[in-house]
Amino acid sequence: MSFLLALELIGTFAFAASGAFAAIDKKLDAFGVIIISFVTSIGGGTVRDLIIGSLPVAWLSNHLALLVVFLTAILVMLFSTFIRRFSFLLFISDAAGLGLFTLIGIEKGVAHGFSPGICIVLGTITGSFGGVIRDVLLNSVPLIFRKEIYASACVTGGIVYFLLMRLDVNFAVVEILVIVLIVLIRLLAVHYKWALPVLVTPGKSRKL
Amino acid sequence: MSFLLALELIGTFAFAASGAFAAIDKKLDAFGVIIISFVTSIGGGTVRDLIIGSLPVAWLSNHLALLVVFLTAILVMLFSTFIRRFSFLLFISDAAGLGLFTLIGIEKGVAHGFSPGICIVLGTITGSFGGVIRDVLLNSVPLIFRKEIYASACVTGGIVYFLLMRLDVNFAVVEILVIVLIVLIRLLAVHYKWALPVLVTPGKSRKL
Amino acid sequence: MSFLLALELIGTFAFAASGAFAAIDKKLDAFGVIIISFVTSIGGGTVRDLIIGSLPVAWLSNHLALLVVFLTAILVMLFSTFIRRFSFLLFISDAAGLGLFTLIGIEKGVAHGFSPGICIVLGTITGSFGGVIRDVLLNSVPLIFRKEIYASACVTGGIVYFLLMRLDVNFAVVEILVIVLIVLIRLLAVHYKWALPVLVTPGKSRKL
Repeated sequence: MSFLLALELIGTFAFAASGAFAAIDKKLDAFGVIIISFVTSIGGGTVRDLIIGSLPVAWLSNHLALLVVFLTAILVMLFSTFIRRFSFLLFISDAAGLGLFTLIGIEKGVAHGFSPGICIVLGTITGSFGGVIRDVLLNSVPLIFRKEIYASACVTGGIVYFLLMRLDVNFAVVEILVIVLIVLIRLLAVHYKWALPVLVTPGKSRKL
Repeated sequence: MSFLLALELIGTFAFAASGAFAAIDKKLDAFGVIIISFVTSIGGGTVRDLIIGSLPVAWLSNHLALLVVFLTAILVMLFSTFIRRFSFLLFISDAAGLGLFTLIGIEKGVAHGFSPGICIVLGTITGSFGGVIRDVLLNSVPLIFRKEIYASACVTGGIVYFLLMRLDVNFAVVEILVIVLIVLIRLLAVHYKWALPVLVTPGKSRKL
Repeated sequence: MSFLLALELIGTFAFAASGAFAAIDKKLDAFGVIIISFVTSIGGGTVRDLIIGSLPVAWLSNHLALLVVFLTAILVMLFSTFIRRFSFLLFISDAAGLGLFTLIGIEKGVAHGFSPGICIVLGTITGSFGGVIRDVLLNSVPLIFRKEIYASACVTGGIVYFLLMRLDVNFAVVEILVIVLIVLIRLLAVHYKWALPVLVTPGKSRKL
């Protein structure tokens, strides 16, 4: 379906760009930037495919996505200052990618016969674990564990997916609604600085 | 077997609680705390299932364990100060979990026909790699590589398992003895501050 | 083939030694040193086997390699100061290991019917991802993303492999040439301090 393919390439581009910028900020060399772009884009789907045993992992046979990641990394390295100016466009692309990748993860879970709860977990992993691996490789605590609503948008999108499915809403309509919802949550979360609560602890605890 | 199931849930609770406390200490948000509780509990079994190819990984069909992890994370966030008071109980639960998870890992290795040495490796991974992933995600060098006897308890338990098996000791007795032994080693190690030797090097080396 | 087996053991030894030295420098205890030696040696092949679904992973049935890793870790702990004196020998062994592991990864990809591009990726992962996992566990940004030509040697070796194959060069000759080429690139890269470009950015960017 050409609309979803376009969305996948936009999302792949945006995830790869987020990886490339983070790697450049950490002063990695060209090889490091390419690898981080790569794991940010395909890390979530890789973890999902590993734990459900859908091997070889999807990206090994997706040459188009690999090419998009590679070109994105090169472009960002060459024109980083210029591309940063379009930060809102990058943000929207990232949100679109998050929405689509979450949807892909959910539907792969359904295709493998998992329960709705597990499918939502798989969607969330697909959408957000590329960023987790990016941050681990760059030696920081993953951003999505500390700030903003990000993975929560995936979880919400996943719950709405199964609610609408149960109401027998048309399949294509559900897919589009879930993606739009996730993009919308991301937009509102960043605009209104929504965040999940952080516990303030009275003093450090002893490590267990 | 109801005794082992009870032990598994206690261990799952204790591992999840150790993850939740560590995440709270690092000031993660609610989502981060839940994820860290999760990987601490199921990370070891996940790595084991991945490398032996027992896919989908076990926790995808273990809704009870997932529920325990989720509730533990919520409870620890709500009542962290109160729960910390029972640190000895948490410690004993953690040791019981370590013992049982090691046993589960060893027996899964045996069921897949691996040699005793590999089974002991699998048991050790099952028992201790959840904590390794927890520490990597929280951006610290894994605790078990630096301090205390922890994984060594798994290795010792594993060796005793195969010795007793060779002596034709009753299966259920072996299982219980191995768990008790691992709990005991942990207790003694913490009480007497046992630690593995750390090499003191005369000056920094050049990186290879 | 006894020449390749000798090379594999030399490479396994060198990779394990590089892990052991890095772990000692970070003041890990004996268990930590053994584990880091282990993941440095077998990490690359493990990631490769996981993503292509060749499970159980190779090292579970390679007792000889496991023994070499274990003995290397023990030897390095006992005689670290003495062994460091032979740093050039360690460097050459590491380069030989990199060459051979890359070759093994490429050929496993070919055996699984992947395209040349994917095979080169698999060879690069086999050769260099053990070091990536080592650095992540030791809480630093992976060395190969920051310094020197390392993974680029694997990529170059992989391209030359497929060029020579297309020219119908004798199989054994191709294998030896690729390994020699990778060793040579490493030697020249270190001698002439070759490095990939790092982008100098004017000011920090906002995180996406």
